[in-house]
Amino acid sequence: MADDLKKGLEGVLVAESDLSSIDGDEGRLIYRGYEIEDLARGASYEEVLYLLWHGRLPGEDELAEFADAIATEREVDDDVLATMERLAEADERPMAALRTAVSMFSAYEPEDEADPDDLDATLRKGRRITAKIPTALAAFERYRLGEEPVDPNPDLGLAANFLYMLTGEEPDDVAAETFDQALILHADHGLNASTFTSMVIGSTMADIYSAVTGGVAALSGPLHGGANQDVMEVLMEIDESGKDPLEWVEEATDEGRRIPGFGHRVYNVKDPRAKILQERSKELADNGDDKWYEITTTIEDYLTEEKGLVEKGIAPNVDFYSGSVYYQLGIPIDMYTPIFAMSRAGGWIAHVLEYQEDNRLIRPRARYTGSEEEEFVPLGER
Amino acid sequence: MADDLKKGLEGVLVAESDLSSIDGDEGRLIYRGYEIEDLARGASYEEVLYLLWHGRLPGEDELAEFADAIATEREVDDDVLATMERLAEADERPMAALRTAVSMFSAYEPEDEADPDDLDATLRKGRRITAKIPTALAAFERYRLGEEPVDPNPDLGLAANFLYMLTGEEPDDVAAETFDQALILHADHGLNASTFTSMVIGSTMADIYSAVTGGVAALSGPLHGGANQDVMEVLMEIDESGKDPLEWVEEATDEGRRIPGFGHRVYNVKDPRAKILQERSKELADNGDDKWYEITTTIEDYLTEEKGLVEKGIAPNVDFYSGSVYYQLGIPIDMYTPIFAMSRAGGWIAHVLEYQEDNRLIRPRARYTGSEEEEFVPLGER
Repeated sequence: MADDLKKGLEGVLVAESDLSSIDGDEGRLIYRGYEIEDLARGASYEEVLYLLWHGRLPGEDELAEFADAIATEREVDDDVLATMERLAEADERPMAALRTAVSMFSAYEPEDEADPDDLDATLRKGRRITAKIPTALAAFERYRLGEEPVDPNPDLGLAANFLYMLTGEEPDDVAAETFDQALILHADHGLNASTFTSMVIGSTMADIYSAVTGGVAALSGPLHGGANQDVMEVLMEIDESGKDPLEWVEEATDEGRRIPGFGHRVYNVKDPRAKILQERSKELADNGDDKWYEITTTIEDYLTEEKGLVEKGIAPNVDFYSGSVYYQLGIPIDMYTPIFAMSRAGGWIAHVLEYQEDNRLIRPRARYTGSEEEEFVPLGER
Repeated sequence: MADDLKKGLEGVLVAESDLSSIDGDEGRLIYRGYEIEDLARGASYEEVLYLLWHGRLPGEDELAEFADAIATEREVDDDVLATMERLAEADERPMAALRTAVSMFSAYEPEDEADPDDLDATLRKGRRITAKIPTALAAFERYRLGEEPVDPNPDLGLAANFLYMLTGEEPDDVAAETFDQALILHADHGLNASTFTSMVIGSTMADIYSAVTGGVAALSGPLHGGANQDVMEVLMEIDESGKDPLEWVEEATDEGRRIPGFGHRVYNVKDPRAKILQERSKELADNGDDKWYEITTTIEDYLTEEKGLVEKGIAPNVDFYSGSVYYQLGIPIDMYTPIFAMSRAGGWIAHVLEYQEDNRLIRPRARYTGSEEEEFVPLGER
């Protein structure tokens, strides 16, 4: 039994965690016992970060202090901006640019000399990373557009400030709240591959910059992040085809084409995060163009009612509605995965802090299947 | 049984691998069936990279072509050099600077658009990373010294060229061979935490730049890389104490002090890599200052013969002799772990290539131990 190969580690328990729990049959996601719906509707992303990192929701004064710290830590060093500008000119992908930005932040960390075991210092470093990611990402986007970065505005919350830095204009309340909710919904989700990567790195007692850099690296993989971008590309294909969405999806399913944004390894029913994002998509549609909301609901209704996918345990996941919500917010499509990283960084940091509290180096084994004995022949005699 | 917690994943088999195998009782390490001693004494680091990546040792023409490709891919983009200069000025740690450099390399990858499933392209990208790491590291060191980087010399092998770029002077044969051997000895070693990190990232089909960046991030942790630096710091402490090494180690052990460089999770006898490095340390001592060789052998003899550590399964590991060897080669102490990364990148890339050949996303589980149900109270009412 000890010698069973556990490829992919599916079902292998590597840690205990108080952070998040998923009930795939009930369609329930909780962070530290709180329903994701309650948090998305009633809290801000900053409150959720506090909850994940400190173990409980903050009081008003605690939140004010915490949010203020994040707001004042948003600026990134000019060196980071210069590197973002060079990467934009080199046509780097946004996830790769973000990976470099987070790695580079460490050079400007004021508590660089703190002991690796000082988890309070690790938390503060993590807070600085979380504060700076939106600034670096928005700057990268501005440079790609040939424009100068917009300085962060400390009077805005993290979500609103990101949209402001991206466009130079303060978002309206619906946009700011919608984006804030999207960040809350993506902040944590058990031990996915990027969270686990951060934990493996953290288990060497490497610093939190290393752990978050690794999280971004893992999330950049097409088998992990990126599905919301795929959904939006399909929605645009439908729009550009000029066909009625119902007609398009009938044809596509008849051809056996897989529609991205449906099905999840963990959920057998509709992802609770998709429900919330659908509502926000509706609200954005009511305030503007309802095209994307119509296309997504037409697809969902057809696949669930006509094709009976729900009975097969295949239902809309978080990516199905997040793509069109981000599109409606005016966010470039290749920034969707970086935005996922912006939010999930909160979860990566929470898991590293929790794991390092009772740390054990993560070091599995491989079964050696290679040659046991080869005779070495020098180069000239081969 | 399925619900057993496997913290640290000790003993859990996550993959099959043909790459390296360790016999901790015999003190034997093989790469694809070849004894590490034979490879260190008879092959170059480039030959070992070929062996790890292509599955067999190269013929003369194959090696010439392969080594030539690496030699011509050594130059890094001016943007990377500019960032290394800024990081040197910001007093960044060498491992963090290397993490940023590898992440940044991807922006200048000529095959950036290759499909993630194209493992031949992944191998070529990995070869470029391996070629460029020494250049970025040496440039960072030169900038720290307030000097300009030295351009790579394509007429030198990877090991000799690194020493040349570090100092601006071509190393003598003993130095070049010693450093080449050190790179061979560190190239692979089963699924340590950094190799596993690269595999987890690779399992998302993220690109090889992401996987190697993650490897550097994990190796930077004090529980993983860094022990050779600790050894050298102890050797220098002994030297500066003015005491006889035997007297110093007697006192230190009487005080219950742990001497770094002894003991290994896998080896119960002397690490085969330590044996080879000890010989090289002797050779360097014969050509120059024998102080460090005397101190290390005095400590080893005392701990093994007087204290009987070998009977307890505690013997010198690879770090015990590598520190003083690097010191004798004139390499700055805080570059020892980056040099480890320079070598181990070959192993990380080999493991990612092998795993992606029959890929499965690595996604373990955590046991949820948090609250099941918390009532949400809005901020103003808390």
